Amino acid sequence: MGVKSFVEVHPDSHFPIENLPYGVFKPEPSSEPRPGVAIGEYVLDLSVISSAGLFDGPVLKGSDCFHQPNLNKFLEMGRPAWKEARTTTQKLLSCMVILKLAEFSTITEPALCNNASLRQKALVPMDKVQMLLPIAIGDYTDFFSSMHHAKNCGTIFRGPENPIPPNWFHLPIAYHGRASSIVISGTDIVRPRGQGYPSGGSAPYFGPSRKLDFELEMAAVVGPGNELGKPVDVNEAADHIFGLVLMNDWSARDIQAWEYVPLGPFLGKSFGTTLSPWIVTLDALEPFTCDAPKQVPPPLPYLAEKISKNYDISLEVRIKPAGQEHSFVVTRSNFNHLYWTITQQLAHHTVNGCNLRPGDLLGTGTISGPEPESYGCLLELTWNGEKQLPLAETSRKFLEDGDEVIFSGYSKGEGYNVGFGTCAGKILPSLP
Amino acid sequence: MGVKSFVEVHPDSHFPIENLPYGVFKPEPSSEPRPGVAIGEYVLDLSVISSAGLFDGPVLKGSDCFHQPNLNKFLEMGRPAWKEARTTTQKLLSCMVILKLAEFSTITEPALCNNASLRQKALVPMDKVQMLLPIAIGDYTDFFSSMHHAKNCGTIFRGPENPIPPNWFHLPIAYHGRASSIVISGTDIVRPRGQGYPSGGSAPYFGPSRKLDFELEMAAVVGPGNELGKPVDVNEAADHIFGLVLMNDWSARDIQAWEYVPLGPFLGKSFGTTLSPWIVTLDALEPFTCDAPKQVPPPLPYLAEKISKNYDISLEVRIKPAGQEHSFVVTRSNFNHLYWTITQQLAHHTVNGCNLRPGDLLGTGTISGPEPESYGCLLELTWNGEKQLPLAETSRKFLEDGDEVIFSGYSKGEGYNVGFGTCAGKILPSLP
Repeated sequence: MGVKSFVEVHPDSHFPIENLPYGVFKPEPSSEPRPGVAIGEYVLDLSVISSAGLFDGPVLKGSDCFHQPNLNKFLEMGRPAWKEARTTTQKLLSCMVILKLAEFSTITEPALCNNASLRQKALVPMDKVQMLLPIAIGDYTDFFSSMHHAKNCGTIFRGPENPIPPNWFHLPIAYHGRASSIVISGTDIVRPRGQGYPSGGSAPYFGPSRKLDFELEMAAVVGPGNELGKPVDVNEAADHIFGLVLMNDWSARDIQAWEYVPLGPFLGKSFGTTLSPWIVTLDALEPFTCDAPKQVPPPLPYLAEKISKNYDISLEVRIKPAGQEHSFVVTRSNFNHLYWTITQQLAHHTVNGCNLRPGDLLGTGTISGPEPESYGCLLELTWNGEKQLPLAETSRKFLEDGDEVIFSGYSKGEGYNVGFGTCAGKILPSLP
Repeated sequence: MGVKSFVEVHPDSHFPIENLPYGVFKPEPSSEPRPGVAIGEYVLDLSVISSAGLFDGPVLKGSDCFHQPNLNKFLEMGRPAWKEARTTTQKLLSCMVILKLAEFSTITEPALCNNASLRQKALVPMDKVQMLLPIAIGDYTDFFSSMHHAKNCGTIFRGPENPIPPNWFHLPIAYHGRASSIVISGTDIVRPRGQGYPSGGSAPYFGPSRKLDFELEMAAVVGPGNELGKPVDVNEAADHIFGLVLMNDWSARDIQAWEYVPLGPFLGKSFGTTLSPWIVTLDALEPFTCDAPKQVPPPLPYLAEKISKNYDISLEVRIKPAGQEHSFVVTRSNFNHLYWTITQQLAHHTVNGCNLRPGDLLGTGTISGPEPESYGCLLELTWNGEKQLPLAETSRKFLEDGDEVIFSGYSKGEGYNVGFGTCAGKILPSLP
């Protein structure tokens, strides 16, 4: 884009001036939570910028949306507020202008760059802050939108004949998830206890899950909601989505397999779901759009989009076993493997009149690619524990106590990345 | 109990001094929402009582829990606060004491009874107020705890051989519901649109639901929650439950049947769920406890209760067709038909470490009795539309536009009722 920040940003950083993702943080343990934007190895404190009167555009001037403990108020304001905030923060953070286009000449704003005391207050080193959940999540919905994941799970649980249920190609299947147990990256996950699937007609067992898994997902964060009874048109759905995060929908496969007929997953999922702290906006991801897959059969009219797009986001999962110095890559996938787009997911969600609220979360479901090394969970990677996944000198069928699971994701631009940082969590032993 | 209120209460009323259920209301359309207690045909405004300094016990003195737009803060305070509030409001509302027991001699408190101006401010005619959702619901979970309902649904959808899945007798099956679309009694419900189950291999249709149904449920309101990773013991679960409400979990059976494999109900349910406005406390229901059914096989130790109890609550559903003056009873059931108790539901919900929060809602699932006239939804009453349910001069397979569905429920004491009032909603036509 021809603009660089006066804040030094390493070329490999996930957070150059082209990204500017939103999070909520505490600069000191005793501080109030406040919104911030990531830039290189710093967090720009938006409450400080707002108090300094630098959000002076027509939408944000006088708003207290950056003096809140979460982003919900900002999300509710919609795309005009988001665009204005992006323009303002980009101007404030830029210093050099390479004049490729005439209109870039007005892109810098020296109010921050030239004010040492404001810079000192507003730019906080990222390694000093505590990141918090950036949104208050009213409802969390999890979709099932990777065809490869649907096919693999169906084959594992129901056999290779018709592994994908007939409804799958007609609608983006989803279930309601548990909002209370969504945690921020870095939160430990206690291995859940529960009933496991009995074999050979025996009684079910109770105890720590023996098949603890990660699920490589991303999730869309809802901006403005819709009224109960008023569906959102699929071609307007993008205006209701603020951005994306990485999400690990931890799963206890043994608990899930025993409980899920006929009402779906419950305790096999509700013990914890981890989010990455930075919400990358759809505006920042715009350069990385790509065509969504052709859908056969064609979707019903309410799901037919004028422009159906995905995003090219590289995803990677690493596991760091207890006591090891290094983590090891266990899978590489891409957001563009999704069959149903996030706008189709949102339109489908509301077609019955269901209301969404700002801060609601729409998970994509596990994002598996077509090749075995791109499968998005251990269930698929080890084929339900039938084979071992090598991990340097050790191996895994499912997660072991002490394992840290680390997701990362980014889109590669020319000379920069628009990245998500990491989404990490470590498994603690079960209660006795 | 030997105490009567100075507020006149008709013997058939659901709201005598033995009940004192909690709700949230606006005395005038422009007022702030505030908590209240139902007494006869009046609402006692707890914000007024609190401002007058009459909550002067050790737990509630100085608390702002009754100056809130919902009951969540009061719920979080737990049973000591609930007991104290009950004692205080019973004292304030009583005037005559029939001295059956010595300790009853101190049960009255003249501060309200003898103060005409306070009475005027604090007691608002119920027909003048607007009732609101009494709680901010973080998460809503719906169980599936009536064996008769499970058996009937299984027979209808999967045939009479093994209609109840093998896991059902080992754990209280549940799924996460949608919190955003929970509405207060009296809110109209727009008939949802969605994809319906295709017959004979044809493509799915899209349009207004053709199989719109009610579900006769009750729901437990969670008081103090639990930390993530810290399960609640089944024998302590009652301390986490404030009380019960009536709940209509509206269901679109055609949408549900097509979408629910493999992840459970989603859009077939999420277009609306109606709650009755008054939360009847477990303390008020204590005289109506009865033995829970014997469970065979015996539950796993984490679900085995020292005392396993149900409540004897008579339930009734009426339908009032559009333009008709009268409503007609379509089913009569009882809360005591539940196989899994609400304390088992709560303990199971947390056994994997899932955290509950004050104001969370745990639905029982449809409460069907053993006899056909006690089935809790039209799916069962008309056997999925195979037969007509007579309704005076007309009949129903499923709900029609303009139908108002009215639930009521109460426990019968000696000379009084502890009742829930009604939970009602009318079907509006679908969007075009």
